[in-house]
Amino acid sequence: MAEQRPLKGRKLGDRRVVVDRPHARYFRYLAPGVLEAKLEAQAPRTGYQRRMATLRGALFGRPLSSAAEMGERLPKWKALPIFSSDVMSSVAYAGEASLFTLAAVGAVAFNYLMPISLLVIALLAIVTISYRQTIRAYPNGGGSYIVAHANLGVLPGLIAAAALLVDYVLTVSVSVSSGVYNLASALTFLQPIHVEIIIVCIVLVTALNLRGLGDSGTMVASPAYIFIGSMMLMIGIGLVRTVLGNPPHVGEIHNLIVSNGQTLTVFLLARAFADGCSAMTGTEAVANGVPAFKPPEWKNAQTTMLIMSALLGIMFLGMGILVGVTGAHVSTTDSILSQIAGAVYGSSPLYWVLIFATMGILVLAAQTSFADFPRLSSILSRDGYFPRQFALRGERLSFNSGIVLLSLLSILLVVAFQGEVNALIPLYAIGVFTSFTLSQSGMVRHWWVERGPNWRRSAIINGVGACVTAVVVVVQVLVKFTEGAWIIIVVVPILVLVMLFIKHEYDMEGRGLEVQPDIVFGATHRRQRVVVAAQAMSRAVVQAVRVGQTMGEEVQIVHVTLDHVEGEQFRERVERQLPGVRVVLVESPYRALVRPLVRYLEVSQAEDPDRLTIVLLPEHLARHWWDRMLYNQNGHRIRAALVGRKDFVVLDTPYRRGT
Amino acid sequence: MAEQRPLKGRKLGDRRVVVDRPHARYFRYLAPGVLEAKLEAQAPRTGYQRRMATLRGALFGRPLSSAAEMGERLPKWKALPIFSSDVMSSVAYAGEASLFTLAAVGAVAFNYLMPISLLVIALLAIVTISYRQTIRAYPNGGGSYIVAHANLGVLPGLIAAAALLVDYVLTVSVSVSSGVYNLASALTFLQPIHVEIIIVCIVLVTALNLRGLGDSGTMVASPAYIFIGSMMLMIGIGLVRTVLGNPPHVGEIHNLIVSNGQTLTVFLLARAFADGCSAMTGTEAVANGVPAFKPPEWKNAQTTMLIMSALLGIMFLGMGILVGVTGAHVSTTDSILSQIAGAVYGSSPLYWVLIFATMGILVLAAQTSFADFPRLSSILSRDGYFPRQFALRGERLSFNSGIVLLSLLSILLVVAFQGEVNALIPLYAIGVFTSFTLSQSGMVRHWWVERGPNWRRSAIINGVGACVTAVVVVVQVLVKFTEGAWIIIVVVPILVLVMLFIKHEYDMEGRGLEVQPDIVFGATHRRQRVVVAAQAMSRAVVQAVRVGQTMGEEVQIVHVTLDHVEGEQFRERVERQLPGVRVVLVESPYRALVRPLVRYLEVSQAEDPDRLTIVLLPEHLARHWWDRMLYNQNGHRIRAALVGRKDFVVLDTPYRRGT
Repeated sequence: MAEQRPLKGRKLGDRRVVVDRPHARYFRYLAPGVLEAKLEAQAPRTGYQRRMATLRGALFGRPLSSAAEMGERLPKWKALPIFSSDVMSSVAYAGEASLFTLAAVGAVAFNYLMPISLLVIALLAIVTISYRQTIRAYPNGGGSYIVAHANLGVLPGLIAAAALLVDYVLTVSVSVSSGVYNLASALTFLQPIHVEIIIVCIVLVTALNLRGLGDSGTMVASPAYIFIGSMMLMIGIGLVRTVLGNPPHVGEIHNLIVSNGQTLTVFLLARAFADGCSAMTGTEAVANGVPAFKPPEWKNAQTTMLIMSALLGIMFLGMGILVGVTGAHVSTTDSILSQIAGAVYGSSPLYWVLIFATMGILVLAAQTSFADFPRLSSILSRDGYFPRQFALRGERLSFNSGIVLLSLLSILLVVAFQGEVNALIPLYAIGVFTSFTLSQSGMVRHWWVERGPNWRRSAIINGVGACVTAVVVVVQVLVKFTEGAWIIIVVVPILVLVMLFIKHEYDMEGRGLEVQPDIVFGATHRRQRVVVAAQAMSRAVVQAVRVGQTMGEEVQIVHVTLDHVEGEQFRERVERQLPGVRVVLVESPYRALVRPLVRYLEVSQAEDPDRLTIVLLPEHLARHWWDRMLYNQNGHRIRAALVGRKDFVVLDTPYRRGT
Repeated sequence: MAEQRPLKGRKLGDRRVVVDRPHARYFRYLAPGVLEAKLEAQAPRTGYQRRMATLRGALFGRPLSSAAEMGERLPKWKALPIFSSDVMSSVAYAGEASLFTLAAVGAVAFNYLMPISLLVIALLAIVTISYRQTIRAYPNGGGSYIVAHANLGVLPGLIAAAALLVDYVLTVSVSVSSGVYNLASALTFLQPIHVEIIIVCIVLVTALNLRGLGDSGTMVASPAYIFIGSMMLMIGIGLVRTVLGNPPHVGEIHNLIVSNGQTLTVFLLARAFADGCSAMTGTEAVANGVPAFKPPEWKNAQTTMLIMSALLGIMFLGMGILVGVTGAHVSTTDSILSQIAGAVYGSSPLYWVLIFATMGILVLAAQTSFADFPRLSSILSRDGYFPRQFALRGERLSFNSGIVLLSLLSILLVVAFQGEVNALIPLYAIGVFTSFTLSQSGMVRHWWVERGPNWRRSAIINGVGACVTAVVVVVQVLVKFTEGAWIIIVVVPILVLVMLFIKHEYDMEGRGLEVQPDIVFGATHRRQRVVVAAQAMSRAVVQAVRVGQTMGEEVQIVHVTLDHVEGEQFRERVERQLPGVRVVLVESPYRALVRPLVRYLEVSQAEDPDRLTIVLLPEHLARHWWDRMLYNQNGHRIRAALVGRKDFVVLDTPYRRGT
């Protein structure tokens, strides 16, 4: 590699720097021809870039080296809140969604909440047991996409992926909307601006995630543990008081939702069950995130998943019992959780602790999606189904493109549904159960193919999981179809088609650019003709001509003109200022500029086909986006017309006045 | 120039052609090094392009050679309908707009219509006399922009231009909306879809204009003359019957607009006058379009303007009288014109002839704007105040960019105002009177500076015109400000600023690219280093290396890698397949790809500053718009970072697999 000569006070780029070994400041020498860039090598240079970098540093933290990744691994106590905020927070809305459906019949139907809750908890148990096997079998991350893709093929894999991506977006919208709804139940003056508050919360969570997983883990932990603590306390106090014969009661409820006189049907019960199932979205998060755990990854992940499911089960059941005991009833402004907390805690500070912790955990439930959506999209990107930038990590080791996309989509959804939780719920959970089904089916095939010890037992466990979740998917689609579920049925296949299309495009590109690995390319000895396409005399043209001259050939300028006199003036000027350059004028009476030029080059190439034509296109480089509107796009059209032809090479020679 | 060797059955580009002299098919030889492109040289080549060209030919006609322009000049009988549709058609809405304002007081206020009409006609006479002088003084087209710019300076010129551009857009929206309103007065079932019909009409007029001026002249002529004929007939019959003591009467009027109890104030009368002034928009069209007339241009233009003003005066006055005689009254669904025509003609076929001719001439009134807007924007573009493509003529000698822009803006306006004529009227006419004032003031200064024979008389005539129109501008702004006129007060200055900004950008570009006219550039003898920035082994990289090798220097590949192993594999492969090429690996632990590369190039350039670094950037050329989302933009960022530095030349080497 280049030796390092002493170099003092030399102007380097746009700054004066005084250094002895110019490389040393920016690079470390590893071997001949191998340098490692220091952080300084990507430091900003202009004032504007520096200010942006300072702002970014303050918001998102300093860039982390790839080697720092190990330090970002999660201990269980951090992993639990990160991966389970979604699941646990759903006690704040899933039960309420069931009651909302049952309220159409009247308060008498609320007696069915307990059986429905037990059914959901049974389902949770089955899925948890089933997923523990997946975690063991796929220690590098066993998301539904990976399992379905590996065992069932491309299409099931992509369906699982699309269904999950849709549900991640919904999770963010539903959780944050529900959190703000709960807060606005206590602080009623917030109700008119709840959509704006939701959007601000999503933006804050986004910023948190752009900082990287490690920091956000610490910040997630406290509200999650406070939430778990005060929920447990509330359920405990409520149940103890009930047993002691002094059950808590809800006082007057505002804006009660009254029965519209529907009769209790199986359909309605199924609908209430489907709504309750939204509690289970996020269950698969741990399985997706196995590699984020501290080693031994699979073991820690299994334990975390078990704790998570147990906590969810206890809270869901406790809430179900307390609804019956306290006489809580759905209203449009008071959440069930707020009613029960009020009945148990009165207006003591503990009530406010629970309300704020609920708000906190619901906003952070979105965090689960912010951990999973970018990870899944980076996996899809690596496999070629998503644009490449989704596979690139940002300065803080997070997948920035995925984070930003998730944030934008969920804000869009919140605006479209005006932040109404009960309007969003029907769209929810279908995606998750679809991916459960595909993933468990994939596991069945996995055991079948592997035939390791106890493979029959494993296959049966996953098989039961697959069957049960498949039934739930069918129920969900049937009972919620007209309420909005049809949107999912439309969006998921479209997403699958888009991903297949992206894959096809990348494959085409790969084939187009592929170099046979065993060809040796000698230097070319083909004669070549160098042509500069010029519309006027300019520094850009002079630069192109001089580059052409270094190719050791005579340079020709081709100039298309609409006006004979102007053309001859151009020729005179070129021949005077650039001696040795020949000018060909092409007059164009029909005012086309591009096609006559291309045709001329083609025809003169055909005269001597053994020769190669190199076309230099001088280009004034746009500094601003509006420049694209101000300058003609002829260069692009010439390039598009000539690139890819056998005997032509096009070289763009961008010019910009020196800084 | 290249000699023409026999060439038989050779594959040329993407088609097999059998020709003896390859150039002869596409080019005509004028002199050594000078070719003239035949129409064939811009003929489409691919199937898709051919189909598009056939469609375009069917819709817009065959391309015309620049030499054909003379044949497109207009005789007076064609020029009258083209330039005066706007002015004459305004009898269909200007009087009605005044009545609409007066209706707030009640039918008794309609007695003031006659004095208002006489005032408008007097104004018309003053402006016409004033403009006849402009036509004589500016035989190459004396639009307000040209006159104000030449005599008063840049800013007045641009204000006049912006005001006119805005009014041209409004003319299209108001005329077509009014035409459809008149049609829907007779055919009431069209009322629910009137916005859609307006848009279809604008699109049709746009297509007509993309065909070029000559053809549209012929098509405009017939409805214009039919309109003039049936209006004259209606006014004649109506007045004769009145004189003979059998005046026509309007029957029952549906959806009458009733008084809201306002009292008649000077403000209200001024407002009614301002509404009536919308009749005068389009008066300046002839002055703008002088060069489109057959020679002697100025003489023919003067005559045409006189006929136009006389016809407008007669029709406007006649309508004013007949409103009083017949008892017509404004309604939300029956136009005044339709009421009077019904009273005079009954339900005879003559009624329908007038209704359809009115519809026709109103749609074609838009034609005046379609002739003027593109012409003005091409003049502005030539002077550097508008993007360059507005100065380029299309295949049919029309200024396509201007036509399309006008069409889009007027459709936008129609959608925004839901095609309500009376909502658009307050925005209207301010622009035209502003440009009248500036233009006449410019003429006063013109005579003052020239001091030819009778200059005092000429200056007084234009001076009176300027003062009168200035007063009208002030009245218009005052009485219509809150009704929408403020929009114009906001938009015109913004437009002026945008035009100044465009001029500034073009001037900056010109200075940046300027070559001193007396420098002679010898061939460069500077040593150079050739570097290819490569992310992976591909055909694009191989092409870039081979181009670099023709520059007669050793070629170096710089490869930024996130992964040491991948980097060494790349090096091994390059050194095996491209012998003689040296590879430098830059490892980037912080995952930046662009800045470490740029920094490396900078630093190694600084080691030997007498040398020039040529950086080749292999690029996979995007075929489709979505490719830009799929492929990373690193090439663009490297280019942006290096272009414009003293010791660097950047060459983009686009690659696409051969067709």
